[in-house]
Amino acid sequence: MITTPTLLLDEAKCRRNIRFMADKARKSGVTFRPHFKTHVSHETGEWFREEGVDRITVSSFRMAQYFAEAGWQDILVAFPVNILEIDVINDLAGSIKLSLLVESVYTVDFLAKNLKAPAGVYVKVDLGYHRTGVDDRDTEQISRIVKAITGSRRMQFIGFLSHAGNSYSARGRTEILKVHEESIRRAAELKENFINDYPDTIISLGDTPTCSIADDFSNVDEIRPGNFVFYDVMQTIIGSCSPEQVAVAMACPVVAVHPERNEIVIYGGSVHFSKESVADSSGRVIYGAVVEDHGPGWGDIVENAVLARLSQEHGIVEAPPAFITRFKPGDIIKIMPVHSCITASVMREYRTLEGKRITRLL
Amino acid sequence: MITTPTLLLDEAKCRRNIRFMADKARKSGVTFRPHFKTHVSHETGEWFREEGVDRITVSSFRMAQYFAEAGWQDILVAFPVNILEIDVINDLAGSIKLSLLVESVYTVDFLAKNLKAPAGVYVKVDLGYHRTGVDDRDTEQISRIVKAITGSRRMQFIGFLSHAGNSYSARGRTEILKVHEESIRRAAELKENFINDYPDTIISLGDTPTCSIADDFSNVDEIRPGNFVFYDVMQTIIGSCSPEQVAVAMACPVVAVHPERNEIVIYGGSVHFSKESVADSSGRVIYGAVVEDHGPGWGDIVENAVLARLSQEHGIVEAPPAFITRFKPGDIIKIMPVHSCITASVMREYRTLEGKRITRLL
Repeated sequence: MITTPTLLLDEAKCRRNIRFMADKARKSGVTFRPHFKTHVSHETGEWFREEGVDRITVSSFRMAQYFAEAGWQDILVAFPVNILEIDVINDLAGSIKLSLLVESVYTVDFLAKNLKAPAGVYVKVDLGYHRTGVDDRDTEQISRIVKAITGSRRMQFIGFLSHAGNSYSARGRTEILKVHEESIRRAAELKENFINDYPDTIISLGDTPTCSIADDFSNVDEIRPGNFVFYDVMQTIIGSCSPEQVAVAMACPVVAVHPERNEIVIYGGSVHFSKESVADSSGRVIYGAVVEDHGPGWGDIVENAVLARLSQEHGIVEAPPAFITRFKPGDIIKIMPVHSCITASVMREYRTLEGKRITRLL
Repeated sequence: MITTPTLLLDEAKCRRNIRFMADKARKSGVTFRPHFKTHVSHETGEWFREEGVDRITVSSFRMAQYFAEAGWQDILVAFPVNILEIDVINDLAGSIKLSLLVESVYTVDFLAKNLKAPAGVYVKVDLGYHRTGVDDRDTEQISRIVKAITGSRRMQFIGFLSHAGNSYSARGRTEILKVHEESIRRAAELKENFINDYPDTIISLGDTPTCSIADDFSNVDEIRPGNFVFYDVMQTIIGSCSPEQVAVAMACPVVAVHPERNEIVIYGGSVHFSKESVADSSGRVIYGAVVEDHGPGWGDIVENAVLARLSQEHGIVEAPPAFITRFKPGDIIKIMPVHSCITASVMREYRTLEGKRITRLL
């Protein structure tokens, strides 16, 4: 029985999401190296293994250790190397096929001096998102980094990695594909510049919107989407998925009903959902979308019923009167989170519709 | 040695904050029932005990259990009762002096039928924040709730509780005091209406901005501030405290430096800081304020150096060129969080400046 805020995981939807992306990678002839930062769970990892996945991406060395413990042997830590963690890096490099991400000669020089076991190295390039990475047009700087890598005994240069996080600003298929086409065009040019000197250079891309929507992966060798395993409200607004594909929802107890202002107060606040918000199609900022209760799972998104405000433990649901009056204290209301990666990170475990508890890295 | 994002706690500042508020309560003749939702730590709780605190507030039954284990005997759960947790409520009511918060006859009736041990009961009233609670001017509804409480064998009516969360929209002393004066004026009226029939009725107020700034607590019997134990950037912007009073800061490894756009990329993202933001005095939305490094602790806020963007594990610091050029990968940068309650909740532990690890409820 659910008595406190609980993150529900619909295993069937989740497995369909995994199969969909694994199939697409296979058909497109690209390596599928899914990012495990969203679920961070041994058990969910096994569902990927059942779809033939044998290499993965994570965003911290702690996650790499966690998945190495579950037998994953080929792990890319797709985060600019934090050189302060050199001891953990050496432990991992000595026990699995570890790949690292770099974006400066400074870090490569540090690794050249301090790595005690072999590691693959990707160079992070910025194809337009401007979070981090070397600008792809700065081939001089990129050359210096690649030379520093290939000049080192322990490091093997793998290729160029980028994350088209700018796809998160896209709305709808056309805009997502525009981001994707720009990424693959620029990645292809970059590869062209290096392929003669480094014939095995690969291009690794991956964000959920473009990987969900695009079908053309020419010049791409590897994809690393992560969020698609669950999807969320933000992805439905971007246009990466339909609400039916979203595999997680929060179940929250109702603690107060305020019909005079069309609000329900739930036990479920920023310590449960996180404080991630998104503007819906009408421009309204929301923290979650209310869904129909449907047995152990959930159904459609309820029109105009949203998680409108959050404090530490309280959430305020705004909804039409006809919906509000269905609830009293002690009922459960189900809400699709805006950003499943972060909600899952703060909730720290899942409960399947069959009532099974699934743990994740704490 | 700090190698990953770490939440630093300056014990001396924290103890000063506790002493300041305990002294103010004593001088004002009000009961000090601090909210422990910010630190949620046995050890920090002891620092309160050393200042004479023997009754506390929490926001979940789980927190109540955690502090009951550490010997706290008088605990108010200041969150509208989640009746689904009746088993935990009965366990707690049977072992400590438990107080509950209600705002509907429906919930009171449920408790009347299901409580197996005595519990104190506060009625939640809304003095202007409009998150939840009964409108204080709806004395008819309030009377019905109070009668339902006093008509029950197990429940003892304590008084009226409110949280002036609207003080968070205030900027500066004058605006904070305006919120406070409105709260105490309305609380006094309410008390006036009930004191004849229920002579022991108390008024319990408490939010960090008003408790930090106000000196007049006439008609208030109890205060419950919580955040003041650490304070944070938001409180400095509201005007509740000075930056010198903020007792926590994140220490984050630098992983990339982008002088061409005055940015530093840190290991420290929304899974570390949470996604809470605030508009600074210039209207710019920030996720943290960079502070000067200062031995094991930190110094002043660096002008125009802010945590400007967050993704899951990455943070982007924007700062003036003279500051940016001081950093290289592997350095540590220190950042005051926007909202310490939530940052502490996602970080799950503290490290004092003496290097001691302080755990909290996970």
